[in-house]
Amino acid sequence: MSENKRTEIGELGEFALIDKITEGVEIHHKTTVKGIGDDAAVFDYGGDEYTVLSTDILLEGIHFDLSFMPLQHLGYKAIAVNVSDVAAMNAIPEQVTVSIAITNRFSVEAVDMIYQGIKAACKNYKVDLVGGDTTSSRQGLCISVTAVGRVKKDKIAYRSGAKKGDILCVSGDLGGAYMGLQVLLREKKVFEANPEMQPNLEDYQYIAGRQLRPEARTDIIHEFNELGIVPTSMIDISDGLASEVLHICKDSKVGAVVYEDKLPVDHQTFDVCHEFKIPSKTPALNGGEDYELLFTIKQEDFPKVEKHASIFFIGYIDEAENGARLVTEGQQTLPLTAQGWKHF
Amino acid sequence: MSENKRTEIGELGEFALIDKITEGVEIHHKTTVKGIGDDAAVFDYGGDEYTVLSTDILLEGIHFDLSFMPLQHLGYKAIAVNVSDVAAMNAIPEQVTVSIAITNRFSVEAVDMIYQGIKAACKNYKVDLVGGDTTSSRQGLCISVTAVGRVKKDKIAYRSGAKKGDILCVSGDLGGAYMGLQVLLREKKVFEANPEMQPNLEDYQYIAGRQLRPEARTDIIHEFNELGIVPTSMIDISDGLASEVLHICKDSKVGAVVYEDKLPVDHQTFDVCHEFKIPSKTPALNGGEDYELLFTIKQEDFPKVEKHASIFFIGYIDEAENGARLVTEGQQTLPLTAQGWKHF
Repeated sequence: MSENKRTEIGELGEFALIDKITEGVEIHHKTTVKGIGDDAAVFDYGGDEYTVLSTDILLEGIHFDLSFMPLQHLGYKAIAVNVSDVAAMNAIPEQVTVSIAITNRFSVEAVDMIYQGIKAACKNYKVDLVGGDTTSSRQGLCISVTAVGRVKKDKIAYRSGAKKGDILCVSGDLGGAYMGLQVLLREKKVFEANPEMQPNLEDYQYIAGRQLRPEARTDIIHEFNELGIVPTSMIDISDGLASEVLHICKDSKVGAVVYEDKLPVDHQTFDVCHEFKIPSKTPALNGGEDYELLFTIKQEDFPKVEKHASIFFIGYIDEAENGARLVTEGQQTLPLTAQGWKHF
Repeated sequence: MSENKRTEIGELGEFALIDKITEGVEIHHKTTVKGIGDDAAVFDYGGDEYTVLSTDILLEGIHFDLSFMPLQHLGYKAIAVNVSDVAAMNAIPEQVTVSIAITNRFSVEAVDMIYQGIKAACKNYKVDLVGGDTTSSRQGLCISVTAVGRVKKDKIAYRSGAKKGDILCVSGDLGGAYMGLQVLLREKKVFEANPEMQPNLEDYQYIAGRQLRPEARTDIIHEFNELGIVPTSMIDISDGLASEVLHICKDSKVGAVVYEDKLPVDHQTFDVCHEFKIPSKTPALNGGEDYELLFTIKQEDFPKVEKHASIFFIGYIDEAENGARLVTEGQQTLPLTAQGWKHF
């Protein structure tokens, strides 16, 4: 590597960066079943279960904006997004650790509010808060969470298990979190221009809630268990549906067809898209942060979930050489492309 | 809690803050053996071993200064300090995850250098890099590491197991990392005043290395195993010896006596203390960041380590009512107090 070479991270992209920096990583331990490249790492400590572990970092100004994100919600969301990664392995979360870095503009009462949200999430998802770290930061608030869970070995769901003919499903409506963010940003601007104005969120409660207080779909994991379904592949929707479908296609070495008219969109999301003059399927495809589960099931399992109120069937898995395609509402077939979140 | 109440974190202190915010934390899972309050959380997945997990966050401007911390060393240190927490449970580290948040002033090459250090540490400590996250940050670099390890159930060392009469030991010399930092800060000031001046670190290589590239003492854990020793209590020295002795006393409900003249100090640390006009035992007692292990052994185990080149016997465990005391070089007996690191 030449000393003067400087490559911008934006040129390479986040996923290519991760590929590059994790090149040549060695595995020493037989307990390591799965390392980098899924929603969570997978460990085998014997017995009939795997342990899965996921970690995430949330930064002020990048992942959240404290001008409209209440501190309790932030604490709740930090736990929920990590629990969601554990759920995406078809595992039940059991423990979390939380590290928080704060500047001295935060009081003890503010930290306490963040922890109220953290503890509410731990109670809701039945996870044990087992450790962490509180330290100071020079700029902004930073929360890093690690979540640990377990799953029976024969029930683990990787991104890599989808097979031709499998049905592509999502666990709930999409695009709400993204449109919620757009409304929150608009109200923030109004408030900044005129601090007398109170934010008007009454008509936007559902989508604002999707953004500010997403839920991890651990309920779906329990239902899979009861219904005797093991998804052939699964991932949580943090970066946007299109991006996650492409992950499954790449890791499973398959293609996929997604029907735009099958994408579940809540009526509030639909109305706000209209208000913002955005086609309603754009945030559903590329919005991100809904934290619903995207998964594939065998056709033979379809009758078990056919009438499920919150499972939507949005397409199917195809041969790899056909690639990932979107059938638009106008019945055009286009290559599926990911805009997703770009933090860089 | 009154709405207008504002308590500064500095008033409360870091440890009291952690006590306050983790009040009322519930434990739901029988896999959780030990939660908040030791170097690592402890999980029981059956079999004869425990799994331990530790997490830590390092922030630019608080935990490191990139004007003198080479990026490779930073990557190495981020792994080492977490591996050290796992070792402090008498466990062997097996996996780590790394989350990095960076501003766009960092190039791909810079991130690659951090990962070179991370991978070198993983190779050295034989730990598998199994996941993580790379995201952007608005201000400064932030690294969060989670380390996982295992230990036979009958060999785990908590902070809480020290008994009256046990011998207090450290695994290496103390105060070097702190004095290394003082030299680095001094050279930085010289450089800032006159950028023509090159930093003079030739005479300070050992202590600069203690600060910039500390090692986790996993070698000691392997030796304990070979020698058939299980420390009755153990903690790694991140905040300073006095602070860590007080943790053991509090958690084990014991007192302790530390002999100032038994504290191991390297001759370079000693010389630099003289240069800086600091009593040489001050950084040894309160300096922090040496990442040596502080542990207690039963008297009957003493012959097994008596001649060990890098284990030093610095005092003993006493009854709780006698408190923690320091016997100074002048043979005065004083209460042991922690200055430690104060990030707030």
